[in-house]
Amino acid sequence: MDSKKFLLQERDIPTAWYNIIPDMPNKPRPYLNPATKQPLNAEDFFPLFSEEASRQELNTTDSWIEIPEEVRDMYKIWRPTPLVRARGLEKLLDTPAHIYFKNESVSPVGSHKLNSAIPQAYYCKKQGVTNITTETGAGQWGAALSLAAKAFGLELAVYMVKISYNQKPYRRSIMQTYGAEVIASPSMSTKAGRKIITEHPNYQGSLGTAISEAVELAMSTPNCKYALGSVLNHVSLHQTVIGLEAEKQMEMAGEYPDVIIGCFGGGSNFSGISFPFLRHNFEGKTNTRFIAAEPESCPKLTKGVFQYDFGDEAGYTPLIPMLTLGHNFAPANIHAGGLRYHGAGAVVSQLREDNLVEAVDIPQLESFAAATLFARGEGIIPAPESAHAIAAAIREAKKCKEEGKGKVILFNLSGHGLIDMASYDRYFAGDLANYTVPDDEIANNTASLEHII
Amino acid sequence: MDSKKFLLQERDIPTAWYNIIPDMPNKPRPYLNPATKQPLNAEDFFPLFSEEASRQELNTTDSWIEIPEEVRDMYKIWRPTPLVRARGLEKLLDTPAHIYFKNESVSPVGSHKLNSAIPQAYYCKKQGVTNITTETGAGQWGAALSLAAKAFGLELAVYMVKISYNQKPYRRSIMQTYGAEVIASPSMSTKAGRKIITEHPNYQGSLGTAISEAVELAMSTPNCKYALGSVLNHVSLHQTVIGLEAEKQMEMAGEYPDVIIGCFGGGSNFSGISFPFLRHNFEGKTNTRFIAAEPESCPKLTKGVFQYDFGDEAGYTPLIPMLTLGHNFAPANIHAGGLRYHGAGAVVSQLREDNLVEAVDIPQLESFAAATLFARGEGIIPAPESAHAIAAAIREAKKCKEEGKGKVILFNLSGHGLIDMASYDRYFAGDLANYTVPDDEIANNTASLEHII
Repeated sequence: MDSKKFLLQERDIPTAWYNIIPDMPNKPRPYLNPATKQPLNAEDFFPLFSEEASRQELNTTDSWIEIPEEVRDMYKIWRPTPLVRARGLEKLLDTPAHIYFKNESVSPVGSHKLNSAIPQAYYCKKQGVTNITTETGAGQWGAALSLAAKAFGLELAVYMVKISYNQKPYRRSIMQTYGAEVIASPSMSTKAGRKIITEHPNYQGSLGTAISEAVELAMSTPNCKYALGSVLNHVSLHQTVIGLEAEKQMEMAGEYPDVIIGCFGGGSNFSGISFPFLRHNFEGKTNTRFIAAEPESCPKLTKGVFQYDFGDEAGYTPLIPMLTLGHNFAPANIHAGGLRYHGAGAVVSQLREDNLVEAVDIPQLESFAAATLFARGEGIIPAPESAHAIAAAIREAKKCKEEGKGKVILFNLSGHGLIDMASYDRYFAGDLANYTVPDDEIANNTASLEHII
Repeated sequence: MDSKKFLLQERDIPTAWYNIIPDMPNKPRPYLNPATKQPLNAEDFFPLFSEEASRQELNTTDSWIEIPEEVRDMYKIWRPTPLVRARGLEKLLDTPAHIYFKNESVSPVGSHKLNSAIPQAYYCKKQGVTNITTETGAGQWGAALSLAAKAFGLELAVYMVKISYNQKPYRRSIMQTYGAEVIASPSMSTKAGRKIITEHPNYQGSLGTAISEAVELAMSTPNCKYALGSVLNHVSLHQTVIGLEAEKQMEMAGEYPDVIIGCFGGGSNFSGISFPFLRHNFEGKTNTRFIAAEPESCPKLTKGVFQYDFGDEAGYTPLIPMLTLGHNFAPANIHAGGLRYHGAGAVVSQLREDNLVEAVDIPQLESFAAATLFARGEGIIPAPESAHAIAAAIREAKKCKEEGKGKVILFNLSGHGLIDMASYDRYFAGDLANYTVPDDEIANNTASLEHII
């Protein structure tokens, strides 16, 4: 474990986020009003999100968006995060590859999610909002927003996917310690929740359903906004601090990544590590490969269809142009709760369609094997979500060994797994399985969707 | 939460540990052979510890002991740790005090324990040892030694206090993820364990009993050494990296602490933050107060007797001159498992006797109230052990407010509580209680001890 850290100073925290949309060869298609099928503008999002987040969501012209001083001040609690040369893992793999990881697990809530929770809460506070709602899968996003809400004096209600609520009770406790209210989803507290509980009494929930519940509560509560932890453009935007810092740190290391990898649920951490580097591909300066590592049980990037779909289960959101398994897709109960989402955000979907990023599917058992190897080589126990990025990085490093090539691999360690130890227990006990999704299930789920025009 | 971090670079990691003993006005009394009552020398410890750790344990002449390059390289995984000005907490307390904390929770196992686990494992490996044993209370030390053992290729068996084994199953999983064997103590695997299980079938264990079991296994296994996570001089020595870094960081902050606080189990983290600063008191340059914050349910520093006692329950260890509640003291089942130990190490006991450090008792409920306030002000959920230091710091900050004085308070945040959320759950549910220790229980437990000669 002679791994090498590359450390920045507080002054190196980026002063602006990178907005990839202006630089994309093909811009993402517009969000559509489900009733009129007309493109939406920023004002259409004002009832749901803070005005600033709404404007960022639809901003297709400004490549750089200034990070408010109040947000940078809070970033200083844990940022800049370390970049680490994973020599311990390299040795265990006996690979000629150089493996680096950006360690986003050092945030006080243990993941990258705080990068977007802070600005979203800040923009709400700034316009006088008093209450916010959200959903959470594994609880990483909910924990982050709970901390951010407390910091800016907002009341927060979190709909937590039921399977995670039960599998990960400690994440619930963390949210409560920060003062948030946590509700298992589907719940009886919303129309969307009641409908699905009635139709499927044993349904263990999904991010899509939890989003429906949170959106419904926000829309029906005065002075209340909704905040989302992934999928959307403004969330990916905020996460670019990861890649922007990593760019400087790779310079310190004197190398440039040949391959960049992030795990993939809705896209926020993958976008965060990738977009700042991807712009150099657009400029023709580099030829880096970008790999999104999704769970085999939720394969929207590799097996999904590129169509207009809802972001939530109940169909409350605008129509989003996405690679999707269908908004009523019910993912298997894998332990990487944060990756159990049916679709990819509009930007990554477009990039994937244009073959500017790649995707791989990781079986659950491979992800835990990779996580255990990483823990023993680097000393950090990764979140089950992040383990998918590690598994993809290990595949690339093994390829390097076979081919005798010394590539530079960078992946994002989006979070630690200290609150996911029950999942590791089940893995060691041999209780975990792999899940593949039958093609006809995807076909059925997506049959009724609007085709991309 | 506009808290301010003070960050060092890797080159600022200390190159030597500070050994306080040469500078003490009164040196600690010697360890004694229980049979002969004769003082022990380093060689007497060779069967139990690595030779280098044994020599460090008895070193009363060298103020500085060089940190091996291999150990410093592993320290770089997470060190230097941040010093933080806790402005969020200050605001919640509306105090004129400036509160700083050294954030040892950023280590990959979540606590300061890795500072000593690494050199202890390293010295064993260097002399060709293949197997090591230890005990763990809350699991922080066991997790740290599991990582260190894996890094240096040693096999490790950990006796984990039964109450923590049951209360904190995730810490057990963490040790297993790093590849260690974990046994609930008392167990049937040792004479010491079998004896206490037979006499007290429902006994939930204590650090004293777990130490007996680990020592017995080490002494009866070829090429096997024992490693301890607290109490001993060489452990405190290794932990001085905390205070040495904090010294530089307080300089960066332009202030000097009036009060320094650490929670207290056997003494390692308190010693680590305190000793480097205490030497300036010895030099007559400063007049800093040092406060050890122990649990009300285990009050060795405030209510214990200063006598020769065993370090473990079964009486396998040398006689140690300590402030003690008696080695067969069975502490209440508080959630700060790492503080459930009957005695204080020889150095801190002597310092306390000489009135060079102070001690306070913190009731369990006060510790959790302090932890919750801290989490909401600073965004970090503290370990229940560290919460005792926070509670003591809050007492001092409140005194400052009453007296209108702006003191500088520094405490050690020895670890985070992300794996202790079940304890927080019970606190929020109103299921936790305070425990005071009746004076006659202490008198009974200590009646048969050897008086300090």
